[in-house]
Amino acid sequence: MLKHTTDIKIEKITGNKRYFTEDTVIKEFPFTIHINGKPLVTLLCSPMHLDYLALGYLESEGFIQGKGDVNKIDFDQETGSIHLEITHDEEMFLNKSRLHPIFTTGCGKGTTYFPAREILKSHPITSPLSLFPSKILSLVKELENRGELFRATGGAHISALADGEKIIFVFEDIGRHNALDKLFGACMMHGVGYEDKIIVTSGRISSEMLIKCARRKIPLLISRSAATGLAVDLAEKTGITLIGFVRENRMNIYTHGWRIK
Amino acid sequence: MLKHTTDIKIEKITGNKRYFTEDTVIKEFPFTIHINGKPLVTLLCSPMHLDYLALGYLESEGFIQGKGDVNKIDFDQETGSIHLEITHDEEMFLNKSRLHPIFTTGCGKGTTYFPAREILKSHPITSPLSLFPSKILSLVKELENRGELFRATGGAHISALADGEKIIFVFEDIGRHNALDKLFGACMMHGVGYEDKIIVTSGRISSEMLIKCARRKIPLLISRSAATGLAVDLAEKTGITLIGFVRENRMNIYTHGWRIK
Repeated sequence: MLKHTTDIKIEKITGNKRYFTEDTVIKEFPFTIHINGKPLVTLLCSPMHLDYLALGYLESEGFIQGKGDVNKIDFDQETGSIHLEITHDEEMFLNKSRLHPIFTTGCGKGTTYFPAREILKSHPITSPLSLFPSKILSLVKELENRGELFRATGGAHISALADGEKIIFVFEDIGRHNALDKLFGACMMHGVGYEDKIIVTSGRISSEMLIKCARRKIPLLISRSAATGLAVDLAEKTGITLIGFVRENRMNIYTHGWRIK
Repeated sequence: MLKHTTDIKIEKITGNKRYFTEDTVIKEFPFTIHINGKPLVTLLCSPMHLDYLALGYLESEGFIQGKGDVNKIDFDQETGSIHLEITHDEEMFLNKSRLHPIFTTGCGKGTTYFPAREILKSHPITSPLSLFPSKILSLVKELENRGELFRATGGAHISALADGEKIIFVFEDIGRHNALDKLFGACMMHGVGYEDKIIVTSGRISSEMLIKCARRKIPLLISRSAATGLAVDLAEKTGITLIGFVRENRMNIYTHGWRIK
């Protein structure tokens, strides 16, 4: 797989000392997704699990509903691009998106073709999943421990899918959204359902992060970081338990606290 | 102006204590930019300085070259959208962008219509601007002190434009890119040139952050956070001095250290 960090020579200043040294920086890789022979988008991402990223991205943006919509996946190692054949005409989505893209605040990806009203029309999430606060703290602690790319470079986001007990998948990426889409792509490939699952992420929860989870009916969304007002509002309306600033022994429960024992 | 934070009721857990309290979250506002009567994009942003954001965004994406390309700006307070009349046909840019958008890793905005090769074709930046390390540390310290939105919500990015002596403009936004584009919009409105200026930002430096600065020939880019490998590579090639992880008395000089005395 394409290496996801680069060692470079830098000049370091610490107090009065100034010296040359080696440093590890995170790679930012332009990854182009082609659908039915046409280039759709180039994501700037960390170059691992690019097949998962492509599938998760396409599902997040509504180009596909699931694995069944994909006839063929070819990954071109040389150019680092991926070519997908999907069962239906992608143009309807392209036209929709091109007409008026909704740009996001998200690290890691550009536009979302699904405005909030899409998810507000669907039924609220009623999953009875519930957790003890201690479990939430331990899930976030495990997330931190598994953030290798972050520890190496300080420039990565990490997202995990967990059930009530343990973390199932973890992905890191330079982009907040890419890390999440890699997770969704992995779930698609491995047929993992969401109704009793939890997303644990290092990144801030903006409306489009929330929308991604709401569209998949994920009942519980946990972040080490802040949530936006719009994300909190959408979580309330879609039935998602949204928890932020999970650090040491603290957390903020923004919505649907009934899932927290 | 539209308020940029929201006070909400949350449930807080600290150790064994669980209680309801007030919390301040950052507002995430869908801001739509219309050009020549057509909606171009909706940015999710912090709802202040939206006129600067619109101008900086349009310049960053190449829809306008400067103030002279804008005939008319109408801000619609009610919908929080902005309508610009520009002197030329925007379709050429739209078509270009729609054909194959480059999505970014950036917090705060979606696509960039200017791939790296655009800036690599232009002349490298040769500005003789130079700074003492102590000045860099003090500029970052001042940036931190002025991050009101960040202190209130933990969910904002801040960017500043400085000369060799002091900070000239500072803007905060939920999005890394928006904060930078607000800065560029302010410079456009007030006729501030870039050749002897410095960008100081809280956010990570990804390739598209670097490209925005390179297109404006800004010689010095300073961040509290990490830089990506691609950003470092582009900084080297375009002649930008790129400095990251500026904290306390430390910094990493990634490229063109000759500007640091």
